[in-house]
Amino acid sequence: MNRLDWNSLDGAGQRAALARPAQSRADSLRSGVEQIIARVRADGDDALRELSARFDRCTLEAIEVTEEEFRAAEATLAPALKAAIDEAAARIEAFHRAAAPMPVTLDTATGVRVERVLRPVGRVGLYVPAGSAPLPSTALMLGVPARIAGCREVVLCSPARADGGCDEAVLYAARSNGVHKVFKLGGAQAIAAMAYGTASVPKCDKLFGPGNAWVTEAKLQVSADPDGAAIDMPAGPSEVLVIADAAANPAFVAADLLSQAEHGPDSQVILLSPSATMLDAVEAEVLRQCAALPRAEIAEQALAQSRLIAVASLAQAVEVSNRYAPEHLILQVNEARELLDGIESAGSVFLGAWTPESVGDYCSGSNHVLPTYGYARSYSGVSVASYQKQITVQEVSPDGLRAIGPCTATLAAAEQLEAHRRAVTLRLAALEDAA
Amino acid sequence: MNRLDWNSLDGAGQRAALARPAQSRADSLRSGVEQIIARVRADGDDALRELSARFDRCTLEAIEVTEEEFRAAEATLAPALKAAIDEAAARIEAFHRAAAPMPVTLDTATGVRVERVLRPVGRVGLYVPAGSAPLPSTALMLGVPARIAGCREVVLCSPARADGGCDEAVLYAARSNGVHKVFKLGGAQAIAAMAYGTASVPKCDKLFGPGNAWVTEAKLQVSADPDGAAIDMPAGPSEVLVIADAAANPAFVAADLLSQAEHGPDSQVILLSPSATMLDAVEAEVLRQCAALPRAEIAEQALAQSRLIAVASLAQAVEVSNRYAPEHLILQVNEARELLDGIESAGSVFLGAWTPESVGDYCSGSNHVLPTYGYARSYSGVSVASYQKQITVQEVSPDGLRAIGPCTATLAAAEQLEAHRRAVTLRLAALEDAA
Ligand SMILES: [Zn+2]
Ligand SMILES: [Zn+2]
Repeated sequence: MNRLDWNSLDGAGQRAALARPAQSRADSLRSGVEQIIARVRADGDDALRELSARFDRCTLEAIEVTEEEFRAAEATLAPALKAAIDEAAARIEAFHRAAAPMPVTLDTATGVRVERVLRPVGRVGLYVPAGSAPLPSTALMLGVPARIAGCREVVLCSPARADGGCDEAVLYAARSNGVHKVFKLGGAQAIAAMAYGTASVPKCDKLFGPGNAWVTEAKLQVSADPDGAAIDMPAGPSEVLVIADAAANPAFVAADLLSQAEHGPDSQVILLSPSATMLDAVEAEVLRQCAALPRAEIAEQALAQSRLIAVASLAQAVEVSNRYAPEHLILQVNEARELLDGIESAGSVFLGAWTPESVGDYCSGSNHVLPTYGYARSYSGVSVASYQKQITVQEVSPDGLRAIGPCTATLAAAEQLEAHRRAVTLRLAALEDAA
Repeated sequence: MNRLDWNSLDGAGQRAALARPAQSRADSLRSGVEQIIARVRADGDDALRELSARFDRCTLEAIEVTEEEFRAAEATLAPALKAAIDEAAARIEAFHRAAAPMPVTLDTATGVRVERVLRPVGRVGLYVPAGSAPLPSTALMLGVPARIAGCREVVLCSPARADGGCDEAVLYAARSNGVHKVFKLGGAQAIAAMAYGTASVPKCDKLFGPGNAWVTEAKLQVSADPDGAAIDMPAGPSEVLVIADAAANPAFVAADLLSQAEHGPDSQVILLSPSATMLDAVEAEVLRQCAALPRAEIAEQALAQSRLIAVASLAQAVEVSNRYAPEHLILQVNEARELLDGIESAGSVFLGAWTPESVGDYCSGSNHVLPTYGYARSYSGVSVASYQKQITVQEVSPDGLRAIGPCTATLAAAEQLEAHRRAVTLRLAALEDAA
């Protein structure tokens, strides 16, 4: 792990300390994805079968998961896992319902009613990766808010196993949370299928979910095409920043850093502390705990890029964190809540010693699809609002038009939009004639 | 104007009837914008001066509007226009405040507090075009929600006039609504300056506002670059769809169609009616009213592409409208509110005879920066939420971890994320040891 002292770094050193791995949209990746999208658009399901054979090494008979497969998945699933999925879904649902946008009505003048109404995005496509292991939790995080929003059709793609099957937990999580159709598709071809549609896969209005570089590039490409689909947000490798004070438990801090490190070799792991003793203790704990992990090798690669940074104070730690804008921010400090007001940019924040990132990944109720790679400066995590459109509505009465018509006409005249002005004055004249 | 009968069209004919003008990202446009962005990134303010001379035909001494210019603008502005700007700002503020997201707190289990807190996007860049005329209303629509959100720095770019000055109404609208800095910049170079920063122009986290094809392409390019800036939404030409029943006033309908047509030759104008008499009457009114407009020539070009479509019923009109997903939807029908529930996709809706689109453009209180080009299927108009990040927060007590820890551990195990599981079990063991 790399040890740094924030205050002995110059500007370039500080920038380097917070740099993410370069995410060059390599020409090979870009054109590779372009080719996959073009193939799917041209050959539809045939292209999907061929690309799945090539990339996922599986021969698909039916692309879509059948009712029998859903039933078999539910029947084979361990009862404890089924219960955990149901329990997590219930808390995710409770929080997402509480945080869902509400309709608004306001009379901005007498006779001028202005409203905001909410409509679900009609058809949404969810992507659930299955890189090193299947991720039923991602099916929950994407499916539950879609169900609350009331999307007309919810489609989910997840890569098939080599035996042509789909993970039972993913199927159960999807089906029990209102996902209408599941397709055994992964990678850029899954994104292309949902963005443009094929004979089997419905064309979706908006796509959601994490994925590898191919999936991310495909989402970027389809979202730049008006005939493609909107996306939830751009993405990069997952990351955590932990702020620990001298009183933190080094074993807890180390466990949280390792949770992030085991996600993948490109995971970003940063620890800030004003206490050099704490940095030492955490480093020792990380090495000790890491050795016992089944994914030790992956974690070690991530840790080789990780940074333990000494800062002057907790206030400076918050400053540095805001500059980094982490996906996950863990505040393992005595009065964690006191730092919260100063946090400007982060995907999700975990307060205090008893709030590991794992609870947010699975079942505290918050969403785990969050902005990475500094996007927390301008993007938010997935929520019910991500699955809705907010439409404004206005209804003006004759009195209302008398009230706001003159203001409208003055501004239209200033902008030299005479037809805009006349649309008002012509109506006002009609009202006068009638009176 | 093109007259069509929806029910005598086949599938291809119906698609063509609702087709928008192809928005090919022509290679020349794409590479032209790439070059402008590269120049601004390399040469900063020098590039901005040179590009402004070339494209806006103006020689800029200072790029930034000075305090003297702001004062002079306010002093020269006609009192009636100043009052109209203030009046519009007040209603826009009232509605945007009412519709702003609220913080949320929910205990999803005993000892598990989950929250959503709101933080402004730190630095935002607003673009106010000045194609055929300056647009103070756009400065309001972009500036007011930024002020409500509390963005730390609000930057606005608008092209200078040939004399090197900026429109007084735009300057007053910006300054009186909390915009911190205004720069005399237009086109792709303005977007590049705000996305990457120069010596004069601060680098912004998110960019907002309409613009021509160059501005739109530049926004698309900087939003695909992690070092660039987020954007409000993709864009295309402005558009209106009007649904009129047999009882509508053809003069009002025509005035609304012309309001849209005068925006530009590429404006999209569609009228749907179950009454052939109404289509005839509106067409005659459009021709009559158009002749008297100063922008008749622009409007005529837009009208040449416009479509008057006969439908079987108001229900069918709503179906067709949902398929088109218009930026502006005007319901000039007797019981307009009864159609609202059926509207699935639209930017902003105008109910009844006394609600011309103009009021929404200027001062009903709703925002006029809306999704065009079918993006209303998945995007919403600009609101306070567009200028905020929603950060989730969780705080778990020892009891809370006892409650949700086992669920977390079960799901982590299912996903083969052992470090995630141990971050929980290690804490639960510590609690047991302490008990
Ligand atoms: Zn995790
Ligand atoms: Zn307009």
